[in-house]
Amino acid sequence: MKVNGTPYRSLWWEENAQALQIIDQRWLPYDFRIEQLETLAEYCEAITGMHVRGAPLIGATAAYGMALAARLDPSDGNLDAAWAALNATRPTAINLRWALDRCRKALRPLVEADRAAAALRLAHDIADEDVEINRRIGQHGLEIIKEIAAKKPAGEPVRLLTHCNAGWIATVDWGTATSPMYQAHDAGLDIHVWVDETRPRNQGALTAWELGSHGISHSYITDNAGGHLMQHGQVDMVITGTDRTTRNGDVCNKIGTYLKALAARDNNVPFYVALPSPTIDWTVSDGVREIPIEERAGREVSHVQGALPDGMIGTVEVTPKGSGVGNPAFDVTPSRLVTGLITERGVCDASAEGLAGLFPEFAASGDPA
Amino acid sequence: MKVNGTPYRSLWWEENAQALQIIDQRWLPYDFRIEQLETLAEYCEAITGMHVRGAPLIGATAAYGMALAARLDPSDGNLDAAWAALNATRPTAINLRWALDRCRKALRPLVEADRAAAALRLAHDIADEDVEINRRIGQHGLEIIKEIAAKKPAGEPVRLLTHCNAGWIATVDWGTATSPMYQAHDAGLDIHVWVDETRPRNQGALTAWELGSHGISHSYITDNAGGHLMQHGQVDMVITGTDRTTRNGDVCNKIGTYLKALAARDNNVPFYVALPSPTIDWTVSDGVREIPIEERAGREVSHVQGALPDGMIGTVEVTPKGSGVGNPAFDVTPSRLVTGLITERGVCDASAEGLAGLFPEFAASGDPA
Repeated sequence: MKVNGTPYRSLWWEENAQALQIIDQRWLPYDFRIEQLETLAEYCEAITGMHVRGAPLIGATAAYGMALAARLDPSDGNLDAAWAALNATRPTAINLRWALDRCRKALRPLVEADRAAAALRLAHDIADEDVEINRRIGQHGLEIIKEIAAKKPAGEPVRLLTHCNAGWIATVDWGTATSPMYQAHDAGLDIHVWVDETRPRNQGALTAWELGSHGISHSYITDNAGGHLMQHGQVDMVITGTDRTTRNGDVCNKIGTYLKALAARDNNVPFYVALPSPTIDWTVSDGVREIPIEERAGREVSHVQGALPDGMIGTVEVTPKGSGVGNPAFDVTPSRLVTGLITERGVCDASAEGLAGLFPEFAASGDPA
Repeated sequence: MKVNGTPYRSLWWEENAQALQIIDQRWLPYDFRIEQLETLAEYCEAITGMHVRGAPLIGATAAYGMALAARLDPSDGNLDAAWAALNATRPTAINLRWALDRCRKALRPLVEADRAAAALRLAHDIADEDVEINRRIGQHGLEIIKEIAAKKPAGEPVRLLTHCNAGWIATVDWGTATSPMYQAHDAGLDIHVWVDETRPRNQGALTAWELGSHGISHSYITDNAGGHLMQHGQVDMVITGTDRTTRNGDVCNKIGTYLKALAARDNNVPFYVALPSPTIDWTVSDGVREIPIEERAGREVSHVQGALPDGMIGTVEVTPKGSGVGNPAFDVTPSRLVTGLITERGVCDASAEGLAGLFPEFAASGDPA
């Protein structure tokens, strides 16, 4: 998407340098910095240190890391070593392991002389596939926004609310929850996005930065505000992303998503979740009971990062000394509160039947992984 | 309540100095500072500058301001001037006007020689009445907590969740939503309080400071976390305060209260609101439709205050440059989501019938003011 009028992906291959360029997201939303990755250590640090974040983007970055390793030394031993080093960067990210396994499996059968070129092509493919999945999610979501727009009085924007950052910088391009927004904007529809701050890590600031950079009207709001806005007819549709969706359509996403789904239901606001199919966990049925929720460090809650008056990035401690802190990182929105799931194959009910209709091959056989 | 083991009210009369002592709340939760008010200008600044905050506490502070004026010059002209100066400090606070009118009305009929002593007695009365109202709210709330405790397995605390600060430092003592907590703790019940951060102004930090200072177990959580905690049986009861309650039991309170009420209903968690009867607005029936919601300055959202690493108080800007901000300050929780209202006269249904049963004299005649 666009930054100051220039289209970007969140990573891209620089032919001249034969190196990967990434947006170093540690400085967003305050500063837009591009970083060039040239060594495997830099790739590992970029993932571990969250220069790149978001499961699809991490997977694509790792694939380019494998391509670098194949160019320097295409032996099985070196590829295994690169696999291990990259896999250790964020052990819990599903896409990371998936991308690394796919690369190693594809390269193994090849003679060493062919591996470097094949690895780079594969990394390009993985990146392009992510872009295509997200583009399709956006197309299906756009149809829903068009239907809402058609029913609105002339001159009124379609008002969308989103939580966290399921944006283009968490993927290679388009994002998931944001893809319908970008496509609606690019199609000339008048939209306004309410962006939940998303404490504790305030990923709403990333979403606000993305939308503002692309020229989309938006307002940053506290996580407390959405219910009130829905009560007063200020929200036409909610779209969020998801970290994991069960085979029955329960949605595990950033903490606080469930509260917005409750408010949407109470006010007859449609609540949609945008997801690439690899985030469906076909082995889990009951999200609330079966998905373990990570309790993260209290410091994420007690300390807030932002720009100091002098422009430097700093933190303030917002809790009293001695107070305990709770920090569950995700919650589960039961499928009964979800109007529909927007996937790359289309929109379906948030139910076992709905998902099986779009993905019969996975629904029948269980987890494809 | 206690601070470091010593019992405090949020204001108290110092006989030796013949002056009012207040807790200068601008420094909480980072620093506990006591301020002595000696001139009318200091009283006015204490209210305007939010050294004291919370409607009941503002009212009591103003009454002591009238007592000071009556001591310096008990003439009608001087009392009128003091009334006007104090009334201009926070023009929208109902209790402020109510306390000032009460003082002026009581002093007018007296000969000037008697006014100073009478004014001081009246200020003491107003402060004591607030303490007594809140103590009674706490007693009625304590009975509910006891009932919950009786049904819990041995060794498990009763877990309460609260939003914003309806605590003792917003009143003269006890607080409203916190009064049942203090009384439960002082009665030896085992409780744990989940304290919502309450963005944008993070009044949860004040509540956490209060509870910690009194020795009550608590956890500071983001506003996003409560729904998840309720889904997993971690909340036995919600208690909040209210800024205004309609004659039908709709509750206008800090933004985000409605979302917690929705989550409580979805998980069968009792949701109570603690209120002194003067906050009931007998002229309003439908809270969502009739109560105008203040849109406050965007800076409250875009900038977060806290302690810098060097211990100084500072702010960080959390929003991207150029992003719009929305900041509705309150929301309305419809009475259908409220399990009960805890008043100084007892607990009632959140309904016209419930409130009329406890306050028949007001319900019949409309607003007593």
